[in-house]
Amino acid sequence: MLEAAIEEARKGLAEGGIPIGAAIFDRHGRLVSSGHNRRVQEDDPSIHGETDAFRRAGRQRSYRDLIMVTTLAPCWYCSGLVRQFGFGTVVVGESVNFGGGVEWLREAGVEVIDLASSECIAMMAEYIEREPVVWNEDIGEPA
Amino acid sequence: MLEAAIEEARKGLAEGGIPIGAAIFDRHGRLVSSGHNRRVQEDDPSIHGETDAFRRAGRQRSYRDLIMVTTLAPCWYCSGLVRQFGFGTVVVGESVNFGGGVEWLREAGVEVIDLASSECIAMMAEYIEREPVVWNEDIGEPA
Repeated sequence: MLEAAIEEARKGLAEGGIPIGAAIFDRHGRLVSSGHNRRVQEDDPSIHGETDAFRRAGRQRSYRDLIMVTTLAPCWYCSGLVRQFGFGTVVVGESVNFGGGVEWLREAGVEVIDLASSECIAMMAEYIEREPVVWNEDIGEPA
Repeated sequence: MLEAAIEEARKGLAEGGIPIGAAIFDRHGRLVSSGHNRRVQEDDPSIHGETDAFRRAGRQRSYRDLIMVTTLAPCWYCSGLVRQFGFGTVVVGESVNFGGGVEWLREAGVEVIDLASSECIAMMAEYIEREPVVWNEDIGEPA
């Protein structure tokens, strides 16, 4: 499942954007939707990988049995999305470059599986090294 | 400032949508952007009042001196947005129909001003009474 999110992150990178991707799967492992960060591409600060995948999944009656997969630990904005809509499970590619709301989600009863993917860690580390200003903008950190 | 958010909520209602509006102001009280919930109108679950206003404000280097005004207390998704991007102040029309993440934001150091507007309370209460299924969908509550 992580591969689908990584594929989205790679698409974002190829477009000149921040390489963070996400994908939503159902309990049977079927892909519901996927998306990636588009801050740079569309000048839209609201499109994180998770919110893009969420939007593309359309209106759902319940998220309890859905799995949010993301290449990087979700920020507060995306952790809030996961908690508000009641996703039962989050699979995180890595939380080394950014820890996000992983512990907060666990405390709220969300199952968070951190895969510590070396590919995700390297992709994000390289981007942060190369584009620190854009990265900090994406997480609301002062320059 | 609340009037701008209420005006957006009314627009949403007139479009057949959920009447929640938001507006972002700078420290001098100048309107930066405004928006409203578009779940019904665009079949897009990601557009809450706050995320719509946030998107329409475009890319900003800092949100510290910006004020997020919303007709209804922000849900976890929108509270996470406020916290991640470091809005210094949130003005809430009401928190009677929905308490959202108001206390969590206060604990995180965000100034939250709750105006307990009778107009906001009535508008939302009437909508929830009339469209409980759509309202519950909007906050991820099981039917």
